[in-house]
Amino acid sequence: MRYIDEQAIEKIALGAAVLGTGGGGDPYIGKLMAKEAIRKYGHVTLISLDELRDDHLVAPVSGMGAPTVTIEKIPSEHEVTAPLETLEKVTGRKVDAVMPIEVGGINSLFPIIAAAKKGLPILDADAMGRAFPEAQMVTFHLDGFEPSPVTMADDKGNAVVLYPKDGVWSERLARVLTIEMGGSSSVCDYNLLGMDVKTSVIPDTLSLAERIGEYLLDNQVKEQLRINKMLEELKGHRLFEGKIVDIERRLSGGFTRGTATFEGIRDSYGRTFTLYFQNEHLVAKEAEQLLCTTPDLIAVLDIETGFPITTERMKYGARVVVVAFPCHDKWRTPKGIETAGPRYFGYDFDYQPVGELLKER
Amino acid sequence: MRYIDEQAIEKIALGAAVLGTGGGGDPYIGKLMAKEAIRKYGHVTLISLDELRDDHLVAPVSGMGAPTVTIEKIPSEHEVTAPLETLEKVTGRKVDAVMPIEVGGINSLFPIIAAAKKGLPILDADAMGRAFPEAQMVTFHLDGFEPSPVTMADDKGNAVVLYPKDGVWSERLARVLTIEMGGSSSVCDYNLLGMDVKTSVIPDTLSLAERIGEYLLDNQVKEQLRINKMLEELKGHRLFEGKIVDIERRLSGGFTRGTATFEGIRDSYGRTFTLYFQNEHLVAKEAEQLLCTTPDLIAVLDIETGFPITTERMKYGARVVVVAFPCHDKWRTPKGIETAGPRYFGYDFDYQPVGELLKER
Repeated sequence: MRYIDEQAIEKIALGAAVLGTGGGGDPYIGKLMAKEAIRKYGHVTLISLDELRDDHLVAPVSGMGAPTVTIEKIPSEHEVTAPLETLEKVTGRKVDAVMPIEVGGINSLFPIIAAAKKGLPILDADAMGRAFPEAQMVTFHLDGFEPSPVTMADDKGNAVVLYPKDGVWSERLARVLTIEMGGSSSVCDYNLLGMDVKTSVIPDTLSLAERIGEYLLDNQVKEQLRINKMLEELKGHRLFEGKIVDIERRLSGGFTRGTATFEGIRDSYGRTFTLYFQNEHLVAKEAEQLLCTTPDLIAVLDIETGFPITTERMKYGARVVVVAFPCHDKWRTPKGIETAGPRYFGYDFDYQPVGELLKER
Repeated sequence: MRYIDEQAIEKIALGAAVLGTGGGGDPYIGKLMAKEAIRKYGHVTLISLDELRDDHLVAPVSGMGAPTVTIEKIPSEHEVTAPLETLEKVTGRKVDAVMPIEVGGINSLFPIIAAAKKGLPILDADAMGRAFPEAQMVTFHLDGFEPSPVTMADDKGNAVVLYPKDGVWSERLARVLTIEMGGSSSVCDYNLLGMDVKTSVIPDTLSLAERIGEYLLDNQVKEQLRINKMLEELKGHRLFEGKIVDIERRLSGGFTRGTATFEGIRDSYGRTFTLYFQNEHLVAKEAEQLLCTTPDLIAVLDIETGFPITTERMKYGARVVVVAFPCHDKWRTPKGIETAGPRYFGYDFDYQPVGELLKER
């Protein structure tokens, strides 16, 4: 057990932008909101998996929607906690702890805000180990848990409780509601008891985000070397260095989808690269050669500072390093690949671990 | 108090197709389902407003969706009663009676099916006095009642509870869910106590539907004269007689929208008429001259039998009489016209009562 203070939030937000480049919105906005909440309500207690009681009800709180929207339509404190309150109303019991459903993007910060306001501890774990764009892309789904009841809220005063047939229907219904609600909403799904949570989540991921933030803010290490240190510590890969020469983004089906094209620079000079994204980066290619594909993680970092650049903030001319991290082993199982692999997203090729793809290079 | 038997259902379904040409789907399918339910579970008790107890919970049960879908995707008995059961779960109390939210279309039959299966009485009243295409177009909305909690179900096993901010948001959220659910759903909204129901509904409308069915089935009267008798009894108007020469239908926004063009026949020979519809007929014109507009009711009847032809079953070449009935006075108030008048549906003209429009003719 330890406390999350403003410094920790600073680091977590930075790490979260590496672990999720779009998930549920922009972590910089989440950072401001989380700091504000902590100033107002006091520090938040971070508990580890072994500190979680079996009979405790754990509620993942998250934002749903396209980052393009969240960046302009900043959620209110009420919006963040409303689904928790609806959950308590429909289940007739108090929530004992909150957790991030995904550790990437604003959704690592959302539950910190909720925890501060409700005086609840937050669990040092998540159900993706990164960020994914769809609601059923969680270890809970892989492990056969149901999302029901799913509670939702928006900024207009609407509240919804879904009892979806399964995780995929949960995503479908929540997504169309989110679009109708103006492109963003707040959600509580896969509300489970501690004993179930422990069997399924990926542990220590808020700490992981914080550690990534630490590497990138480490004044003891020269800026240019921080990325190397992070890649070394996290067994990550450098995919290429490049300059953004084209960026195409569109809002479709409630997601921000698009493509970014890069001209190689430095060691990658003379070559062309492409990233394909749906909220999150899904595929990295050099010409027609695959470099990395979902569920492995792709992140775009500023070439000078190593700071992550979210899909939403990628701009023409930016000079970047594109890196990749192997996903958690749960995502490399048949069910994991079926749920979040390239074919699920409509790509016509199989998943290959990033390490193997880069060996072929 | 009296019983609804199979004969009554036959008449109600016929009357319902005059009072709503599309509302929630095809009344012929509802008729088959309602007869089947009565054979299986026994007759249904029809109670009048003064037989309703003040402390009784009344649940309107209805189908939502485009008739184009309902005609092919026949709802199951489970689908009809599922929102009632969810309502009882979330409110923690038993429903005492059901009622039709609208007396037009399949939605006059839906609550009969639910009443039979659950052994509940059905109230002889509705909240439109006809059918309208959108969920907030109810007297409850005009009288300031909230729809919340709204319970929904589909044929896939999904259930939803909405706590919408108001009637318009209820429609918006339920509509996108209905589309995602495959184009049709079942709904319970505006669940109110007897004391509130009594102040707001339009009484005796199931009996009205039954009476219309009686006129159209009356063997004592020559077929050609039955329409006249009905118009006389219900103070309706004959707009024109015509042959359908063009019909255009599309699914859009969860509704069946379209236009039907008629070449005048008999007394209307040499003239051209158009009907515009969104599930229900909304506007009737002769060339550019307005003949009738929502919230007044427009119905299309077979020229030989007087039987109603729903928007979905209108076909090229059909020879019809198009008739109109004045709406209930509640719809002629400023709030009524704002809610269901021509401008709400995007037409650029004001409401004028059908009687006045025809005087100008």
